[in-house]
Amino acid sequence: MQENKPALEEFDITPSCFIGCDAGYDESSIVIFGAPFDGTVTFRPGSRFAPARMRNESAGIETYSPYQNADLEDLSIYDAGDLDLPFGDTNRALEQISGMSKYLFKAEKRPVMIGGEHLVSLPAIRAAYIKYPDLHVVHFDAHTDLRDEYLGEKLSHANVMRRAWDILGDGRIHQFGIRSGTREEFEWADAGHTELHRYNVGGIEETADTLDGKPVYLTIDLDVLDPSVFPGTGTPEAGGIMYNDLQRALLALRGLNIVAADVVELAPHYDASGVSTAVACKVMRELLLLMGK
Amino acid sequence: MQENKPALEEFDITPSCFIGCDAGYDESSIVIFGAPFDGTVTFRPGSRFAPARMRNESAGIETYSPYQNADLEDLSIYDAGDLDLPFGDTNRALEQISGMSKYLFKAEKRPVMIGGEHLVSLPAIRAAYIKYPDLHVVHFDAHTDLRDEYLGEKLSHANVMRRAWDILGDGRIHQFGIRSGTREEFEWADAGHTELHRYNVGGIEETADTLDGKPVYLTIDLDVLDPSVFPGTGTPEAGGIMYNDLQRALLALRGLNIVAADVVELAPHYDASGVSTAVACKVMRELLLLMGK
Amino acid sequence: MQENKPALEEFDITPSCFIGCDAGYDESSIVIFGAPFDGTVTFRPGSRFAPARMRNESAGIETYSPYQNADLEDLSIYDAGDLDLPFGDTNRALEQISGMSKYLFKAEKRPVMIGGEHLVSLPAIRAAYIKYPDLHVVHFDAHTDLRDEYLGEKLSHANVMRRAWDILGDGRIHQFGIRSGTREEFEWADAGHTELHRYNVGGIEETADTLDGKPVYLTIDLDVLDPSVFPGTGTPEAGGIMYNDLQRALLALRGLNIVAADVVELAPHYDASGVSTAVACKVMRELLLLMGK
Amino acid sequence: MQENKPALEEFDITPSCFIGCDAGYDESSIVIFGAPFDGTVTFRPGSRFAPARMRNESAGIETYSPYQNADLEDLSIYDAGDLDLPFGDTNRALEQISGMSKYLFKAEKRPVMIGGEHLVSLPAIRAAYIKYPDLHVVHFDAHTDLRDEYLGEKLSHANVMRRAWDILGDGRIHQFGIRSGTREEFEWADAGHTELHRYNVGGIEETADTLDGKPVYLTIDLDVLDPSVFPGTGTPEAGGIMYNDLQRALLALRGLNIVAADVVELAPHYDASGVSTAVACKVMRELLLLMGK
Amino acid sequence: MQENKPALEEFDITPSCFIGCDAGYDESSIVIFGAPFDGTVTFRPGSRFAPARMRNESAGIETYSPYQNADLEDLSIYDAGDLDLPFGDTNRALEQISGMSKYLFKAEKRPVMIGGEHLVSLPAIRAAYIKYPDLHVVHFDAHTDLRDEYLGEKLSHANVMRRAWDILGDGRIHQFGIRSGTREEFEWADAGHTELHRYNVGGIEETADTLDGKPVYLTIDLDVLDPSVFPGTGTPEAGGIMYNDLQRALLALRGLNIVAADVVELAPHYDASGVSTAVACKVMRELLLLMGK
Amino acid sequence: MQENKPALEEFDITPSCFIGCDAGYDESSIVIFGAPFDGTVTFRPGSRFAPARMRNESAGIETYSPYQNADLEDLSIYDAGDLDLPFGDTNRALEQISGMSKYLFKAEKRPVMIGGEHLVSLPAIRAAYIKYPDLHVVHFDAHTDLRDEYLGEKLSHANVMRRAWDILGDGRIHQFGIRSGTREEFEWADAGHTELHRYNVGGIEETADTLDGKPVYLTIDLDVLDPSVFPGTGTPEAGGIMYNDLQRALLALRGLNIVAADVVELAPHYDASGVSTAVACKVMRELLLLMGK
Repeated sequence: MQENKPALEEFDITPSCFIGCDAGYDESSIVIFGAPFDGTVTFRPGSRFAPARMRNESAGIETYSPYQNADLEDLSIYDAGDLDLPFGDTNRALEQISGMSKYLFKAEKRPVMIGGEHLVSLPAIRAAYIKYPDLHVVHFDAHTDLRDEYLGEKLSHANVMRRAWDILGDGRIHQFGIRSGTREEFEWADAGHTELHRYNVGGIEETADTLDGKPVYLTIDLDVLDPSVFPGTGTPEAGGIMYNDLQRALLALRGLNIVAADVVELAPHYDASGVSTAVACKVMRELLLLMGK
Repeated sequence: MQENKPALEEFDITPSCFIGCDAGYDESSIVIFGAPFDGTVTFRPGSRFAPARMRNESAGIETYSPYQNADLEDLSIYDAGDLDLPFGDTNRALEQISGMSKYLFKAEKRPVMIGGEHLVSLPAIRAAYIKYPDLHVVHFDAHTDLRDEYLGEKLSHANVMRRAWDILGDGRIHQFGIRSGTREEFEWADAGHTELHRYNVGGIEETADTLDGKPVYLTIDLDVLDPSVFPGTGTPEAGGIMYNDLQRALLALRGLNIVAADVVELAPHYDASGVSTAVACKVMRELLLLMGK
Repeated sequence: MQENKPALEEFDITPSCFIGCDAGYDESSIVIFGAPFDGTVTFRPGSRFAPARMRNESAGIETYSPYQNADLEDLSIYDAGDLDLPFGDTNRALEQISGMSKYLFKAEKRPVMIGGEHLVSLPAIRAAYIKYPDLHVVHFDAHTDLRDEYLGEKLSHANVMRRAWDILGDGRIHQFGIRSGTREEFEWADAGHTELHRYNVGGIEETADTLDGKPVYLTIDLDVLDPSVFPGTGTPEAGGIMYNDLQRALLALRGLNIVAADVVELAPHYDASGVSTAVACKVMRELLLLMGK
Repeated sequence: MQENKPALEEFDITPSCFIGCDAGYDESSIVIFGAPFDGTVTFRPGSRFAPARMRNESAGIETYSPYQNADLEDLSIYDAGDLDLPFGDTNRALEQISGMSKYLFKAEKRPVMIGGEHLVSLPAIRAAYIKYPDLHVVHFDAHTDLRDEYLGEKLSHANVMRRAWDILGDGRIHQFGIRSGTREEFEWADAGHTELHRYNVGGIEETADTLDGKPVYLTIDLDVLDPSVFPGTGTPEAGGIMYNDLQRALLALRGLNIVAADVVELAPHYDASGVSTAVACKVMRELLLLMGK
Repeated sequence: MQENKPALEEFDITPSCFIGCDAGYDESSIVIFGAPFDGTVTFRPGSRFAPARMRNESAGIETYSPYQNADLEDLSIYDAGDLDLPFGDTNRALEQISGMSKYLFKAEKRPVMIGGEHLVSLPAIRAAYIKYPDLHVVHFDAHTDLRDEYLGEKLSHANVMRRAWDILGDGRIHQFGIRSGTREEFEWADAGHTELHRYNVGGIEETADTLDGKPVYLTIDLDVLDPSVFPGTGTPEAGGIMYNDLQRALLALRGLNIVAADVVELAPHYDASGVSTAVACKVMRELLLLMGK
Repeated sequence: MQENKPALEEFDITPSCFIGCDAGYDESSIVIFGAPFDGTVTFRPGSRFAPARMRNESAGIETYSPYQNADLEDLSIYDAGDLDLPFGDTNRALEQISGMSKYLFKAEKRPVMIGGEHLVSLPAIRAAYIKYPDLHVVHFDAHTDLRDEYLGEKLSHANVMRRAWDILGDGRIHQFGIRSGTREEFEWADAGHTELHRYNVGGIEETADTLDGKPVYLTIDLDVLDPSVFPGTGTPEAGGIMYNDLQRALLALRGLNIVAADVVELAPHYDASGVSTAVACKVMRELLLLMGK
């Protein structure tokens, strides 16, 4: 993930970055980095392996999107590699993500983070909020993630959106595809704290209209997809949306000012066939093209 | 799966029952038990491992259903564990299931059985019929299961519904999602012996109307789901229904008098990602909440 | 895959052919053969294992199709087994497929080939073209396969349809389900060289109408299916069609003069659950019944 | 698995028999057949899939053995394919194996059976005993298989050698590698009923000396191998022998009059890497070469 | 994992405890509990799933050991189930293990813990030390586990033995099978802090002699076994000992006063064939029989 | 795999090279590169995925070897990444490997190549021979690889050593661990063309003595290891050596002038547990330390 003149440049060497993201740091307005942390996961860990797997497998997709008639080759994107995060000390891991995010915002880059569990979104959202105090979050997920505490913890993948609300307040979080949570979480959201869309992405166009011109953080928990489409995740939840639903929802966001984004919760160990990684790579491509406009 | 005062109760011990089903036997109107038998399967065995796997993995779902706005924690359900069934002697295995079912009906409980292959439904249906002679069966499945003989056998997963018809007679079996069988089976059903709905769950509301107030046995062969949704089964059959179709069909049955039910044909060995088990657990939750009303 | 009197015919021996395809060569108008070659695959190889796996697993489906109300047992189909193809020398492998295809056409048989990678279609299409100069190709695929060169190669799975166009010319290739390729490929197709239908099978009925009475080669790259339905393939591409979409598309082709066909790109190693093979077998059955009319 | 003139003989078709075993029935003194039955297995089923998998994968080994300086190509062996056995009715399945074995003995062939679970050895041993009343059995296994009853059953994989003793009596069964059983089984064997060698193949040469000139049935339960060498089996038992130990033991049997043999308990579903099948194929080759002398 | 009178006791219900460990709490001198924690693992997590998997799969082994001529059925062992441990807060998890261990020691039970990662041994060793100040630790492992810090952490699976040394001091820790670590760790051990045996279990008899009559904590990190024998672990390290080596080493410890023990680092997700779990269960049985003498 | 100043150097980024091999090109005397080619494999392909997987998983081993008391951190090694090789055109792929090898020899580097199938050794050996005409090859393998032709091909993984002999002539190739081949291959070797050691590494010390001071190319086909130790390979062959045998053999080569080396035939798809990759990484470390002396 380094740049400048490589040795042996006269040979054809396979790049180790995400496909089509081999630009230099300085020329890039978008910067990818991995946050391979899954330390608060209670059920099935393994999203720590996602960023490396996605880079390896990204060679299986094209850089061109017929949906957007756009190509990663036309953009300048730098892939910074993965942060080397500690396990067993959640706070230290989150601080490193925070540091990277702030650094990139300061340099006027738009960060795109590959998780890791959903908790990694929290420091990135906080950094975005510092830069853009009128920030909105568009959130695709199967789960509400709105618990106040989870097994006695304030910081976990199960309450990341509640912690984001602590920062942003009412009306700033727009949730789509939600189909799992406690009764309390649904009721709390429905009381006006977040804009929660059950089961699918209905209403995305209306939301997009209200967000026109505002800074948007886009967080995609890939388990919003049905487990048939995306089995490789820690907490699969039946009844999700299909890939084309997510594709259409992303297209609905075209033209918005997406200042940062993340793609989280791919757990490759539960993806024997590799299709979840392939899906994640395609979502990543569409997301990058969306931001590259 | 025992009750009364445990030792070491001052410690937090993970329960070994299905999630949210930790009530005592006496207070429970619904009783779960496993029937881990797959001895007549000709193609791919392994549904014997389903009940244990479902209990282990049930921790991955919530006890609350936003679809029904209901929670397993609000009900009293006892999980009796698995019957210890012999292999190589089909009749002895079926007798034990029969014994358990009758015992529970006698105690005015509603049994919910986790298979095992579909043949385990037969003794449970027979026991329900003895208790409720006007019994109807609602049957979700990819396969007709209406052969009279299968490879010379009268008792197998491939003719369980034909044997149920021997007991119940015409008009009592309502089949949904059927997409595989012999020409003879389809013709036999269409001759009026069963109410066979091809390919999907269309017509479920009408059937539900006719069953109002009648005792219903609900048997869900999970292979009614498309193999993309539910790969972990012995005889996957393309062209099935999606999870949300099944969810809607179950909601259509709300208010019926479901006196017993089963969920069969999960074969965890074909479920490398674990999503089939997660789907089965969610179906189980929805089913229990349906009966708990 | 031999015929005439077997030894030990008084015993019940499991046939090693595709289910229901145990007729003798002379009496058969349809002849199946396998082309287990994947030598030009750059990403994930393994389709070489498809024909043997499909025969083994075909016992899991019925010979009867409720969709067509037709049964393989009513037809006479010979399964010739697999060609023994060399690796590392693409031309020699293609020549053997070419030889077999021509031989069968000469004998007035309709060949149905099981791939292997998509490149195996090329010699079979060429042989069909020699027999039927007004040949049309109906092509289901996720990928355009229209590159002129791919990594410096003129012969690869990524340009098989471009090579077919070299033979057939404009307006003869009808592509459905396409959702991946380079900008150049899409533009080249849209310039009138092929009839390219994006994303799904919309328009299949109209195409079928224009093909009435003409000789048709039907090539099904199974990755046209969504990876949720068909994970077991070398280059899974999200956003595909469901099994029932493909089923309906095949039914739309009923009555056409399908002179040859193939089913390619099943890679069993990426199919831990076996559902992809089960899907491939069902597609194969429907295809054979379509041609058997 | 048929013979005589095949159609399409001018093409190179991959044979579907075990490698190097493509001779005609009449000219063969050794006949292979599969017995894909695992109906009495209580723990992990799946040995029913072994014969087909072994034929498919046998292409991965050479026909030549440097250990014996002998080649399958120098022998004439007929591969009859698999018996089509019913599940759920153990007796009927065993009768078919019995019928095949007797038929082959009558025709002066030496049968080599591929299991299936170990119980399939019983009818084959009985048939051999009828032909050769002074039969001895050499038995490699991790398990004693000497229970009188197992879960109330007299016929199961767990008591096959006890049933063989019912036929043969004391001193005729020579067991090697045994490391698992009940106290009662070990004591019963040690009381002189069988010659039981614990843990390894020590003593095989001495046993071979005593068997010189006598008819021998050789039954190899592949779980005699350490699970590291042979993970793909239903009941893996740590502490077994290495491949080279088994190889040496087989070489110690050279020159004996092995009138029939079997290789049982490969369960391919537990063999993700395929090495167990590769081991089974090599054992099969060595066994065939041993008998072909 | 509860006791006293179960409901439905007239039916044959599969126990959910480790095989042969179904005694009541009060009558038992040995108590099993699970510590499903893997929160500090940096490489491949998943040992959290070990205790549940071992109980499920323990049905595949016998309760009788021919090596010790002893049977679990002859002992009284209580299986308490698994502690419900939090993730993301290492200290809280360790406190719960500490609490359970102290409680059991107070009740004059001998605890046998199933991990989880190796760090879970630390609170158990500390509790044992409080009870038995002259405690010695016998430690089987591939890794030294003697780092002072690991990635800035004082508490992790990579420095558990260093932390145990903080408690116990020089000469109390006896390590066998060690083959991986930093130069500093090996040198630190060789300076006399621990008794470190490289590569194998040579010297175990001499160590056993010196420990006669002393209280011993036995901790078995199963990765001491060669990865061929035990692939299912987070950090497989080539060049380990075979099962029979470990078996012999355990037998060498017979007669010692083993006051507590643990078996750690089975990670079932890396154990596709199930053999690692089978090995772990057999080690567990031998360990329990060793302590039951 | 580039060098010089990276962007974002103030953050802790996980390196993408083989562990401990992060030196710059100029300062390094050893240079690693990957040759991910498996185009002539007839049985089970997939070694193309080995180099990327080994780099990813190398974090699981230590950089320090207790066997050699040496550490990768003490050496300067550059990891150049993987050559981007074409499939379907064997000659072009081999030319690129040849070019890289020659370039490195010219720069007085010692190349260490990660395969890929064994055929990739041929151009590397040829390049070494050009530099060092008195070159000897030490070859660890299960297979002779001495066919003159294989399925009509002169260039394949099955005849790579025969082609090396074409270059080097009699007495220059020293083979260890060989246990599979045709009778002709063994006889040809035994006629004095190569020094072929059957089954194990016996004689390695004597061979090492004769090679003292001569330039040596070391090629390790990892399938020399027993499939229990190394299941993840295309053509597993039972009866191989254990890891410690290979370790000892490598130590016997200490002090030799190893001018280049390769490690080939890891096929990660057959390595569900990851242990084969872990073994390959450890072999790689030991090999690098051997050359670094």
